[in-house]
Amino acid sequence: MSQDNLSAVLYGINDLRLEQAPISKPGPRQVLVKINTVGICGSDVHFLTHGAIGSFVVKEPMVLGHESSGVVSEIGSEVKGFKVGDRIAMEPGLPCKLCEHCKIGRYNLCPDMRFFATPPVNGALSRFVVHDADFCFKLPDNLSFEDGALLEPLSVAIQACRRGTVQMGQKILVLGAGPIGVLNLLTAKAIGASKVVITDLNDERLALARLLGADATINVMGKRSDEVRSEIIKAFGDQQPHVSIECTGVQPCVETAIMTTRSGGVVVLVGLGAERVEIPLIQSPTREVDLRGTFRSANCYSTAIELISSGKLDLSGLTRAHYKLEESLEAFKRTQNGDVIKVFIHC
Amino acid sequence: MSQDNLSAVLYGINDLRLEQAPISKPGPRQVLVKINTVGICGSDVHFLTHGAIGSFVVKEPMVLGHESSGVVSEIGSEVKGFKVGDRIAMEPGLPCKLCEHCKIGRYNLCPDMRFFATPPVNGALSRFVVHDADFCFKLPDNLSFEDGALLEPLSVAIQACRRGTVQMGQKILVLGAGPIGVLNLLTAKAIGASKVVITDLNDERLALARLLGADATINVMGKRSDEVRSEIIKAFGDQQPHVSIECTGVQPCVETAIMTTRSGGVVVLVGLGAERVEIPLIQSPTREVDLRGTFRSANCYSTAIELISSGKLDLSGLTRAHYKLEESLEAFKRTQNGDVIKVFIHC
Amino acid sequence: MSQDNLSAVLYGINDLRLEQAPISKPGPRQVLVKINTVGICGSDVHFLTHGAIGSFVVKEPMVLGHESSGVVSEIGSEVKGFKVGDRIAMEPGLPCKLCEHCKIGRYNLCPDMRFFATPPVNGALSRFVVHDADFCFKLPDNLSFEDGALLEPLSVAIQACRRGTVQMGQKILVLGAGPIGVLNLLTAKAIGASKVVITDLNDERLALARLLGADATINVMGKRSDEVRSEIIKAFGDQQPHVSIECTGVQPCVETAIMTTRSGGVVVLVGLGAERVEIPLIQSPTREVDLRGTFRSANCYSTAIELISSGKLDLSGLTRAHYKLEESLEAFKRTQNGDVIKVFIHC
Amino acid sequence: MSQDNLSAVLYGINDLRLEQAPISKPGPRQVLVKINTVGICGSDVHFLTHGAIGSFVVKEPMVLGHESSGVVSEIGSEVKGFKVGDRIAMEPGLPCKLCEHCKIGRYNLCPDMRFFATPPVNGALSRFVVHDADFCFKLPDNLSFEDGALLEPLSVAIQACRRGTVQMGQKILVLGAGPIGVLNLLTAKAIGASKVVITDLNDERLALARLLGADATINVMGKRSDEVRSEIIKAFGDQQPHVSIECTGVQPCVETAIMTTRSGGVVVLVGLGAERVEIPLIQSPTREVDLRGTFRSANCYSTAIELISSGKLDLSGLTRAHYKLEESLEAFKRTQNGDVIKVFIHC
Repeated sequence: MSQDNLSAVLYGINDLRLEQAPISKPGPRQVLVKINTVGICGSDVHFLTHGAIGSFVVKEPMVLGHESSGVVSEIGSEVKGFKVGDRIAMEPGLPCKLCEHCKIGRYNLCPDMRFFATPPVNGALSRFVVHDADFCFKLPDNLSFEDGALLEPLSVAIQACRRGTVQMGQKILVLGAGPIGVLNLLTAKAIGASKVVITDLNDERLALARLLGADATINVMGKRSDEVRSEIIKAFGDQQPHVSIECTGVQPCVETAIMTTRSGGVVVLVGLGAERVEIPLIQSPTREVDLRGTFRSANCYSTAIELISSGKLDLSGLTRAHYKLEESLEAFKRTQNGDVIKVFIHC
Repeated sequence: MSQDNLSAVLYGINDLRLEQAPISKPGPRQVLVKINTVGICGSDVHFLTHGAIGSFVVKEPMVLGHESSGVVSEIGSEVKGFKVGDRIAMEPGLPCKLCEHCKIGRYNLCPDMRFFATPPVNGALSRFVVHDADFCFKLPDNLSFEDGALLEPLSVAIQACRRGTVQMGQKILVLGAGPIGVLNLLTAKAIGASKVVITDLNDERLALARLLGADATINVMGKRSDEVRSEIIKAFGDQQPHVSIECTGVQPCVETAIMTTRSGGVVVLVGLGAERVEIPLIQSPTREVDLRGTFRSANCYSTAIELISSGKLDLSGLTRAHYKLEESLEAFKRTQNGDVIKVFIHC
Repeated sequence: MSQDNLSAVLYGINDLRLEQAPISKPGPRQVLVKINTVGICGSDVHFLTHGAIGSFVVKEPMVLGHESSGVVSEIGSEVKGFKVGDRIAMEPGLPCKLCEHCKIGRYNLCPDMRFFATPPVNGALSRFVVHDADFCFKLPDNLSFEDGALLEPLSVAIQACRRGTVQMGQKILVLGAGPIGVLNLLTAKAIGASKVVITDLNDERLALARLLGADATINVMGKRSDEVRSEIIKAFGDQQPHVSIECTGVQPCVETAIMTTRSGGVVVLVGLGAERVEIPLIQSPTREVDLRGTFRSANCYSTAIELISSGKLDLSGLTRAHYKLEESLEAFKRTQNGDVIKVFIHC
Repeated sequence: MSQDNLSAVLYGINDLRLEQAPISKPGPRQVLVKINTVGICGSDVHFLTHGAIGSFVVKEPMVLGHESSGVVSEIGSEVKGFKVGDRIAMEPGLPCKLCEHCKIGRYNLCPDMRFFATPPVNGALSRFVVHDADFCFKLPDNLSFEDGALLEPLSVAIQACRRGTVQMGQKILVLGAGPIGVLNLLTAKAIGASKVVITDLNDERLALARLLGADATINVMGKRSDEVRSEIIKAFGDQQPHVSIECTGVQPCVETAIMTTRSGGVVVLVGLGAERVEIPLIQSPTREVDLRGTFRSANCYSTAIELISSGKLDLSGLTRAHYKLEESLEAFKRTQNGDVIKVFIHC
């Protein structure tokens, strides 16, 4: 094909180039998608600035971006249920479907996962991308392309709330008021949490969290762990939270989560921090507080669509900024600013 | 004591008498409650009109009423956390706390349960009642006494949604738009169900269900089971419900629930009908559709309070009628009319 | 290929023909298997004698047999982990891997399942069969080919015990002492059930069940449901079973299971009976007894292998008879006799 | 009463005195138990040598011992199901039955728990003890008094296996071959674990673990964490364990458990170690490995009795030593030797 397929390709640390890439033909069970909107995630920025995340190292040029939506442009021979022109969002990871994890439905743990913008797999910051049809989800009329791109981080929040078994009438602590934190806030509220308290270092983020429905916010800047714990318990009406959702990855927040969660409760670990961390682990065998990690998501996209489409969860309050594909570098810089919840690139 | 303790005492079929009853002293772990509001339940009416429900037969005079709220009037010597004047609701069943069911937390199955207005245990339609303090729940300021009385049927709905593992983003079918049906509708919505379809024979009830948030309603009067099934699936956008909550107890609705629920889904049986019923049971071993019964509730009162108090669930739309304790007979007649969701007696 | 591929092909009711069939080439993710042993199942016999099971009707010639083991004979280009000569068992159903059921790990509910010997899919009663590699399981050295063929019905029992949440120290009732009944007995014992009582109409089957570890057996012939119930409870030491596993599909046994299971317990429905059945359903909403259907199995093969290989579960006590592929008709007749637990055809 | 009630009373660090204590009258729901056998637990030794465990400080003289069995000697007025002369074991903790943890069945988390030999509650190292009848369990004829005393640590193992959701056919790693470690080994095997690998620093303990059924043992003395990890995976046949049960509380074992457990698996934390510990926590949010603490036990005594009585779990292989109540000091010294799994004091 000689069509335009401008793509944002990462060549190395801080070396992002806009260049043309070939457009693949969709296989029998795939579709070709004309990308409309891509959200920038912290991991995209991390690859740009560090060239790697943990053991995932960018060794060859790689297209960035994994929060994406677009329009079906061409359809593989065996694909059912889609037609050219359908508005869709793409779940960014394609599992092997053969291993034990895939077969029991926890495909997010598949060791052979091919995930957008995780080396060596190309991401979605292109004009066109080929994707497996069963990981494409039609957008209802009342979901925008931006909503479609936001399904990815929203799915991470849904996964976290599921892993934490957040239930109606519970008191939920969220640590960190960035994109994942506020999406956990919205999700917990959508499923009947009676009170959500959220912490952060940044007053503006906390102000937004209040607008989005947080019952109380706590700025933890400069406070000792036991002070923070007391403030949280007070904010819950002299009760400890049933579930704490840790979205920062930093040691003081992990410690606060463990010390504050009520006996028999759950700490969900979403944020990625240091390889090793010192924690008051004895709280777990003496109070049966569980630590449950959550990695990406599985089987959350259709749930996310239902929540938005039915009005149970409203994304319109998330602050956002907009760039063209040609302005990708500016978009990444804006993401680093952290002054809006989500930066979108419109392709 | 020589205080007024007018009570609505059932002597036999259609023989309800208003008479004075003695006021007990609260034991060390009990409180004396000045009753404010009692809701009338279908089971109260059934005892009045039949003198029995199943094996529970009224053999001696028994006070009716089990949906109740009031004010703490006197406190036992070991009771903590309450003071005279506290506004409370009473969970109506006191389990033995000794048996296997109690010890694992399913105390609603306790064979030695002492439940308000279930023979031979007196109910709450009195000026004063003594109750165990740990089954009394303080009402937050934003809950009325009527809300307090409604905690009982709301707990039945919470129990049903828990037993059915209703989850966010799911499609839920409710069969029956009476008090328990609409409370299941409200609960399912409060915990993130994306679409609730409700059925009944009565257009007025269905109209109210729509006002309360039902996404679609279906009047099943005169329709064949397969017709109803088709209408339901159509109402869900050509999908089958994940969970069906059966609140009528009648055979055609049980059949509809079983035939309509998607493979791997759950039918929750709340309504009580005939002892024996013919059903298409083969759907269960060929499609792994579960039938799960739900009996009263356990550990649902504090959840119910949280849902109402936080605004996640709004009871204000339930239609209601009001009577004095002296008008109890009229109140029971009005309940039989079925023109309002709940009839309250104010004591 | 011009190799011998004698196959047992069903043309219609009681019309089973032995004839040559073409041998397929394995696709990239498939293997060609030289069949060694096939167990005959009641469903195979039912297709032979009725030409259909429910809505599955044999319209074109179809090879029978779905409990099979053999040796890898040829390997597709992308297959990993197998080599020619590997001894394997085949999980007989190939799901679509695209639908909601497949993605959450309940692939046994996949509506597009291609299952051995379920019309129009050919079964394994052949010299050679092509199968997806990820549904082939290597047999450890201490498992025979007969063990390999038995993995299929054993997986059905594992699925039933999982669906019933059979747990250590529990009292388990099994209704029906045929192949599925005794495999449920063995599985329940292997996972720590403290007492298993089993019922049947046939004294010889019950005698075998005792040899295989049943703590008590009850011949229900000519007895009323309440008599059977009393005998069962007595056999459990005046206690009701936690879980009842119904393997007959007949109404009196379903009724016994429901009436006998303790409050809060589970009745697992494995046996397939009439489309419609009259049952004392009110036991479910008054005692929270669950009815959970179980259909085939998912993710049970590797568990079954582990149980046998580790010696936790011993199949050697199952009575059996042996036939050659050329004697298939005799093998089917012997299966109808019911005098042995399993009839094997050696290919 | 003037009866002999010699008791082993702890006055302070290493100050254990044998002296007479008054015999209480059983309350209406209590029984008086003539103690037969008490097992010595590491926590008893810790109180003797340190005068405290964490925040539990011995401030007043306290009778030691919480693993106990005996004979019913007197019965409270409301007690049902017991008669004088019944052989029983005592579950050592009496919860409040009023709090949220008690009501949902997790009474081991009750903050008002009164637990034998946890300050200020007296233990069972006496001739006579009064205990709540519903926490006394009749011993079947085939259970000895020593079995009865062992029900307590066995319940801890059952709780650990339940919290870890150990399932049939799984591969289980146990870290630590002391009393709790080997009881976890026996429990995991009893419920169908296909392979259990156990680690320790002591070859004699590991030799006993092999006798008791361990499939492989690894002495971790002087080995690096990654070496231990490799040995474990090799011992499981190049697979990672599904569940790791950590019974030592020491950092290297916690680290080994986290690094070795397969993705999506569970690390159960049973052993109590330092308040704070540095661990590779990032394994949890990147591989969804859960850390679940387990504290004492709830609802495990009757299960433990069933497992032993049915022969599913055999305690006879545990090495043991025997002392009289008058020899309590020697018994405690012997426990510190660690040369037998359990030291019993016969009262």
